[in-house]
Amino acid sequence: MQPLAVSIGDPAGVGPEVIAKAWEARHSAGLSPFVVLGAEAPLRAVWDGPVALVASVAEAADCFESALPVLPVGALAEATPGAPTRDGAALAFAALEAAVALTLEGQTAAIVTAPVSKAELKAVGYTWPGQTEFVAERSGVAPEDAVMMLAGPSVRTVPVTIHIPVRAVPEVLTTDLILQRAEVTARALRQDFGIAEPRLAITGLNPHAGEDGHIGLEDRDVIAPAVAELRRRGWTAEGPLSADTLFAPHIRTRFDAMLCMYHDQALIPVKALDFDQGVNMTLGLPIVRTSPDHGTAFNIAGRGIARPDAMIAALQMAARCAASRKAARP
Amino acid sequence: MQPLAVSIGDPAGVGPEVIAKAWEARHSAGLSPFVVLGAEAPLRAVWDGPVALVASVAEAADCFESALPVLPVGALAEATPGAPTRDGAALAFAALEAAVALTLEGQTAAIVTAPVSKAELKAVGYTWPGQTEFVAERSGVAPEDAVMMLAGPSVRTVPVTIHIPVRAVPEVLTTDLILQRAEVTARALRQDFGIAEPRLAITGLNPHAGEDGHIGLEDRDVIAPAVAELRRRGWTAEGPLSADTLFAPHIRTRFDAMLCMYHDQALIPVKALDFDQGVNMTLGLPIVRTSPDHGTAFNIAGRGIARPDAMIAALQMAARCAASRKAARP
Repeated sequence: MQPLAVSIGDPAGVGPEVIAKAWEARHSAGLSPFVVLGAEAPLRAVWDGPVALVASVAEAADCFESALPVLPVGALAEATPGAPTRDGAALAFAALEAAVALTLEGQTAAIVTAPVSKAELKAVGYTWPGQTEFVAERSGVAPEDAVMMLAGPSVRTVPVTIHIPVRAVPEVLTTDLILQRAEVTARALRQDFGIAEPRLAITGLNPHAGEDGHIGLEDRDVIAPAVAELRRRGWTAEGPLSADTLFAPHIRTRFDAMLCMYHDQALIPVKALDFDQGVNMTLGLPIVRTSPDHGTAFNIAGRGIARPDAMIAALQMAARCAASRKAARP
Repeated sequence: MQPLAVSIGDPAGVGPEVIAKAWEARHSAGLSPFVVLGAEAPLRAVWDGPVALVASVAEAADCFESALPVLPVGALAEATPGAPTRDGAALAFAALEAAVALTLEGQTAAIVTAPVSKAELKAVGYTWPGQTEFVAERSGVAPEDAVMMLAGPSVRTVPVTIHIPVRAVPEVLTTDLILQRAEVTARALRQDFGIAEPRLAITGLNPHAGEDGHIGLEDRDVIAPAVAELRRRGWTAEGPLSADTLFAPHIRTRFDAMLCMYHDQALIPVKALDFDQGVNMTLGLPIVRTSPDHGTAFNIAGRGIARPDAMIAALQMAARCAASRKAARP
């Protein structure tokens, strides 16, 4: 398999640090080779391990065993942890762009994105709401078809609606939207995770999934029809299920993924159970893309305390999913 | 301290079974003596340990070491696990009534309620929505002043709104309501849990607590003023906090309780983290009342597989809180 492409993210955030720590753990964590798209300075600012500046992905694969390979995507003379700059944001943008291009070309097997600062990116002309939308656009996928999944060792969740007010959720939620998210999820579980018959849980919107219409009507009128249609199409799906009990140990293990109706319903369980190992994966793309489920954490950058667990989990998941796709290809 | 009063709950549910198993664990779990309000038949139907029919609480205290004391509150010739009956529901009602009365009289130190079936109770003329409202009324407390807290070893949460549709939450949520729930919670943490300076987390309603009004206005306009007022009144309170990260291990340990804006936000983390040990406690009453956070589970009653962990946790919490109140009394 080709190496993975890792975009460095904001050079003043914890990205460089967790990437370097992940490389240090390459043997114990069984990591596939990867190449960092970025620059040398941000790594040097937080780490004194071996860095190899490379000119190609092939060169990166060759040296990965003995040094952390960096393919420069722009000039950045210096980086101060915790102090984001315009030059740093421009580097983060260029790194993302290069990582996506290499992966679309097939030079790299998948893309793992380190965290960026949306505010800083905006200031250098980046117009997408997040990294996901950029990756989707470059991959030729409509933003609504790129589906976010949060995954940890205990649970995988997919929020059907994401960054909208709770007040808007009942309006935005439709049977078609749930169906679309569910099918993208089910196909990804099959293609990327090698699960032949994925088992989907669909949560209710209201307490106790509405108790047959006694506590809200959306569960019965919007969600239940989506579950029925999923089954009619041959998928294994259950719901609407009471979201409060769904994440209890003996229930969550019965499902491969949980479709949740809104942001907190999906993210609370993943972060409560799997905080340090949460991976954000974009489903529905022609390429595999994962990222650690944490932000730039400027406040702790450079202090040596950022944990690389989520970055390591993102690298492992990207490699596993890319291999699964490759194996499935005729 | 006086014994605890345990109402038997629906005799066809898992109540009798988890009560008997809790008594068996009285030494290993360090349980205070308790007396079961109910009847002998439902216990006999699922358990062959020693039962002592007693005529008073004092008698129960004397025999607790060698037998499970039962103070009969009505006649029930037989009980079949999993098959609820009118007679069983009537017994559950009488048991609840007797347990509350004994505790209000000070004969018992606190009340622990085993699960009932709301549907069955309705059929025998029980008009309260749940057990909480009954206990509140008999204690002379308005239903809105009886506040539900879910507590496990990892986290304590209080839902500000409970069994209402998600659609209604933004309408029902007011600064005053949050303040009222928060102050009942803070006083209970002080009085019942012996926490001199309780640290409260107040969640946001919307994703990322609204991101300064970019994702909904309630966090800024309704919740933030409640937090400010709590602080002005001298309480230690933080918020509105992004609910998805609040339950991560390194954040949840900074707080003694989390005020959550709606049902699933409060219950998902408790059930994900502490499923088998979740206790439902009613705050704001003149008496201490706890219950295991599970239902009658008719489908598994009598099969010997119901876990007593939550009942044991409810007994422990009731004893601890009753002792804390007693110690605080002049």
